[in-house]
Amino acid sequence: MYIVILAGGSGTRFWPLSRKKHPKQLMSVFGGKSMLQRTVERVLPLDPKRILVVTNALQARETAAQLEGVHGVPVDIIEEPVGRNTAPAIGLAAAIIGRHDTEAVMVVLPADHYILDEDKFRATIARARGTALNGYLVTLGITPDRPETGYGYIEADRKLRGEGPYPVVRFVEKPNLDRALQFLEAGNFYWNSGMFIWQVKVILEEIERHMPDLHAALAKLDFSRDVWELADLKPQIEAIYPDIRSESIDYGVMEKAQEVEVIPADFGWSDVGSWRALPEVIEPGETGNVVINAAGEVSVDSRNCLAYGGGKLVAFVGVEDLVVVDTDDAVMVCHAERAQDVKKVVEELERRGKSEYL
Amino acid sequence: MYIVILAGGSGTRFWPLSRKKHPKQLMSVFGGKSMLQRTVERVLPLDPKRILVVTNALQARETAAQLEGVHGVPVDIIEEPVGRNTAPAIGLAAAIIGRHDTEAVMVVLPADHYILDEDKFRATIARARGTALNGYLVTLGITPDRPETGYGYIEADRKLRGEGPYPVVRFVEKPNLDRALQFLEAGNFYWNSGMFIWQVKVILEEIERHMPDLHAALAKLDFSRDVWELADLKPQIEAIYPDIRSESIDYGVMEKAQEVEVIPADFGWSDVGSWRALPEVIEPGETGNVVINAAGEVSVDSRNCLAYGGGKLVAFVGVEDLVVVDTDDAVMVCHAERAQDVKKVVEELERRGKSEYL
Repeated sequence: MYIVILAGGSGTRFWPLSRKKHPKQLMSVFGGKSMLQRTVERVLPLDPKRILVVTNALQARETAAQLEGVHGVPVDIIEEPVGRNTAPAIGLAAAIIGRHDTEAVMVVLPADHYILDEDKFRATIARARGTALNGYLVTLGITPDRPETGYGYIEADRKLRGEGPYPVVRFVEKPNLDRALQFLEAGNFYWNSGMFIWQVKVILEEIERHMPDLHAALAKLDFSRDVWELADLKPQIEAIYPDIRSESIDYGVMEKAQEVEVIPADFGWSDVGSWRALPEVIEPGETGNVVINAAGEVSVDSRNCLAYGGGKLVAFVGVEDLVVVDTDDAVMVCHAERAQDVKKVVEELERRGKSEYL
Repeated sequence: MYIVILAGGSGTRFWPLSRKKHPKQLMSVFGGKSMLQRTVERVLPLDPKRILVVTNALQARETAAQLEGVHGVPVDIIEEPVGRNTAPAIGLAAAIIGRHDTEAVMVVLPADHYILDEDKFRATIARARGTALNGYLVTLGITPDRPETGYGYIEADRKLRGEGPYPVVRFVEKPNLDRALQFLEAGNFYWNSGMFIWQVKVILEEIERHMPDLHAALAKLDFSRDVWELADLKPQIEAIYPDIRSESIDYGVMEKAQEVEVIPADFGWSDVGSWRALPEVIEPGETGNVVINAAGEVSVDSRNCLAYGGGKLVAFVGVEDLVVVDTDDAVMVCHAERAQDVKKVVEELERRGKSEYL
């Protein structure tokens, strides 16, 4: 089994903690280890042959530094010179692994997701591996617990089997609230987690079938030596990548492929899409606030606030539903319901040419 | 004319910017110079003979450092070993000045007040000087523009004279809103500003009459040399001060004295009693927020916020009526209407023994 971790996100929604060179997956969102480090540690007990981390050139240095402490499993970092969404990143990783072991099972995981029950996560991956070995493209579908409008959904055909895996009927874009409520009631819709499991040869065949241009680009890679020496590849990737079309694996392959199965997953999951998501995944303290990376908290008549404290003492007086983030060069205060609009601050800074804050 | 500046405040209401060793008057509340420095510069054009700054031992060093740049007028710093409210501080200053010039006019000013129109302020002091030379205790009464419940009031007898000075009928403690409204409508009530003008011999006589114990304590001071060499006095002040009763000059003298006059003042004044008061005295930017000591501001749908930015970029997203203060070791977010409760944070920190934040 090979693990492919997609670590190329830019994470503007966690500004000012996330920056271009320091996106969400490299952040210590929860204090302590970064989301990338947690993602890697979470799969080590699965005893994979290798871990491939696909990231972009801007973040490669920090990514490598964060993974220096991983022992026992080789870790390769693959740099994309430009971001081209998930399909090229996955295709590239599959081509590399396929050079060595085309029968191998490949697990694709985003670097910036939160998972509560790691044992259950690994058990789900192990189940998915069995299905993948039968030639299916397997996706993990999160059992929804609310009519979330921020995620895509997967409709499963549950007529046939008890606990899944189920055949996928279709992928659905982010719904409005009415449709999300219908999906929740129907019981056979799952959140699209972006976690995939398949054999290398199967995904490569599907890419050839549904994304022939990507397949052709990847075919140009010249694997001169049959060793895991990816430095050779860097200039070749830099040569082919700019001309590759940006596409998600969902749209490019999954929605078009025939043999797609979904395995229901309920290990406690969040894509941690904004500061607002943190109280979902971090237990609030006795004051009812979540305070991360702070020297302490004093709360006077305040609740439901989240602070990322920059190592300082954090004090709240008579406030609620706020997100407060303190970094070396910026301090941001945001209403909790407006956490999605943090990206507007980033846009405004771009407009002003304030690249030092980006 | 001698200026006595009372600079002994502890300023817990401006935490976390104000600390025990760095109270409000030493802070650069508006960015740039501190309130004490502004208070001193404001009186220099009055060409006083000397300026005496009464402060406490904890703050003496920083006070002296801030006043090093004052030229042309001698500045003395008088250290109180413990705070005893305003009457002992004023009595001590009067005793010292009286040793040199008992006929002199002495102007008492708090170090931490904001004054908008400085020319008008000086013109008012000049008028008050004339009244003081006629033997009156003169207090400046701020013409109220709202039914403020946070200040004490002075009732003036306006039957006799046009523009004042008016005889004082009585001093009134902080009223409730109903009474404050009555005062505002009556038109002969003024805010007690804590600014006083009198001849040294007059205030010393009044202290002798109404505060004989303070008079007796001050009489123990041995002025061995008739020079402005106050170092001699320090051990003597340390010897007498602990036994002196804590008392305000208002309660100890002004409310009991007969010959008290009030001069209406409308030069734009605030005692800057809390973070909340700053938007009154600093013009908000085009976003409707007041941002001090920041590298910049980005505001998304936010208004009526005050930020003290610690030199950083400040970003607001979907918030209003907040006070945000960022310092090296603490970040505080407070609802604007709860600014008085910042002192509760200080109390809590005291309870926890967190003296490093006090």
